[in-house]
Amino acid sequence: MPDLTASFPGPFPVSPHAADTAGQLERWLATYPLVASERARVALCDITGHGVARTFPGADPAGLALCADLLLWLTAFDDAYGEQTGAADPGALVARVADTVHVLNGRQPPGGGDVFCAALADVLARLGERAAPEGFLRVAAAVRDSLYGLVWEAHALAAGGRTAVPEYRAMRPHTVFVATVTALAEPVLGYELPSAVRESAPVRELESAVADLAGWINDLASYDREKARAGGAEPFGLPALLAAAEGYGLDEAFAAVCALCEAQAGKARAGIAGLAAAGGPGAVHARAVEGIAASYVWHIGHRRYGGG
Amino acid sequence: MPDLTASFPGPFPVSPHAADTAGQLERWLATYPLVASERARVALCDITGHGVARTFPGADPAGLALCADLLLWLTAFDDAYGEQTGAADPGALVARVADTVHVLNGRQPPGGGDVFCAALADVLARLGERAAPEGFLRVAAAVRDSLYGLVWEAHALAAGGRTAVPEYRAMRPHTVFVATVTALAEPVLGYELPSAVRESAPVRELESAVADLAGWINDLASYDREKARAGGAEPFGLPALLAAAEGYGLDEAFAAVCALCEAQAGKARAGIAGLAAAGGPGAVHARAVEGIAASYVWHIGHRRYGGG
Repeated sequence: MPDLTASFPGPFPVSPHAADTAGQLERWLATYPLVASERARVALCDITGHGVARTFPGADPAGLALCADLLLWLTAFDDAYGEQTGAADPGALVARVADTVHVLNGRQPPGGGDVFCAALADVLARLGERAAPEGFLRVAAAVRDSLYGLVWEAHALAAGGRTAVPEYRAMRPHTVFVATVTALAEPVLGYELPSAVRESAPVRELESAVADLAGWINDLASYDREKARAGGAEPFGLPALLAAAEGYGLDEAFAAVCALCEAQAGKARAGIAGLAAAGGPGAVHARAVEGIAASYVWHIGHRRYGGG
Repeated sequence: MPDLTASFPGPFPVSPHAADTAGQLERWLATYPLVASERARVALCDITGHGVARTFPGADPAGLALCADLLLWLTAFDDAYGEQTGAADPGALVARVADTVHVLNGRQPPGGGDVFCAALADVLARLGERAAPEGFLRVAAAVRDSLYGLVWEAHALAAGGRTAVPEYRAMRPHTVFVATVTALAEPVLGYELPSAVRESAPVRELESAVADLAGWINDLASYDREKARAGGAEPFGLPALLAAAEGYGLDEAFAAVCALCEAQAGKARAGIAGLAAAGGPGAVHARAVEGIAASYVWHIGHRRYGGG
């Protein structure tokens, strides 16, 4: 695993509502049973609840719950319909995502939809009450892109998983959901970034560095778990794709990905420092993005990935 | 073809900039060559330019150009990568749409992208200058959904085209692009609908009736053209799906779809009248939606579909 202590030494700030958020997830899943296995459910509520408590340590309980529910929803959707299941029958995944398109447009899907549709409608209704219209639309777009990322990944896997590194890198912020988490920052923490700041080079570069970091450390951390789930096949992630592109062995590829993670963590830290020093709304956003980075750094030590 | 004269008798109001809009499309396609065949290009510029001049007859030239370029872009993208081409290799379509996801997020796609990416970036930049942030996000969401609709359609076709009617009906507003046209109304005509009005039952029901009408009359009008393009195979559309679901012969199915179109046209007319009588922003929106319906009614007589 990469050594990120130079850029993100921890311990990371954590919300006092961490345990409550994990408990709320358990209750939400009692209403919307998205995860069949009890063992998976308990681990997922724990990592998601304690994770968002590190993502947005200053958020109120309702904001944390909203963020946790949406992230858990995406993760459970991916576990149920994406990855190997999606690759085995991409058309079935495409049909499930089609139902969510209707829900995202505030419509009832044909036949009423499954429990994932009902759960998504619940999250979107709460987001609509909390977020400004722009914020709502931005999160909804990110959810569309995440779901599209799962469709894209299923096709890439079905075609043998030989994706070029730039294509993988471009889509990875969506499949690891960090683009959705970033879109949630404003409505969950209650600030509004002026468009000019959101589209400025320092903010975009910081968000890109954190997005890369989030995806790649997840690739490293989930490697063993995904290899086991795929019956020993090479997981679809940066280590394998970089190995194929550069002719690396697995150890070399892991070392290269670690170095890339450390470089992006360094860029992220410098970007946070620059925006913080400049003050204003960019500084507020930099603190939010710092929490997002911290939570991805934190979560790779969780037992979902064989850690802690 | 259905008899829509009771609800939409025509002649429809048309912008004085109709011919200029068609000419502007020709110039835009000289910069962004999205259509290989000259014959197809000429027909597409003509139907799109004169169509949007009936969709938004009161729009200024820049608004008409924006709407025309985006609609032509969607149609050309569908012709190039969707339909039978998409069904033959859904993974290739999924990769092309992935590039557009990056463009929709204001990013450069890996490798820089093709001419469709460059053209989409141009349209989005102009939309961003014209539209309020909410309007921009709403159109961008509709474009995402349209592109997702093409992915969905390719998979449905690849699986043999045996989609249930409710699934088809739910996605059809996206694949016929009427949801995108509806999202364009506010930025192109320069009004802003309060959220409560946009989400009110009368507005939603009117938009649904017009969306159904647009999709189904297009299915009828494009039937011969699509059957020829598919080498004689039954086109993926409401006539064939309704025939399969109800055990109809082709003539019966056509008659049933005509009756459904006439019923939705009647609903649309009643919805327009109701909103117009109530006044306020709903009345402004009803006039815009009336133009959208009119343009779909008008365009089925165009020579692209063997008409006039």
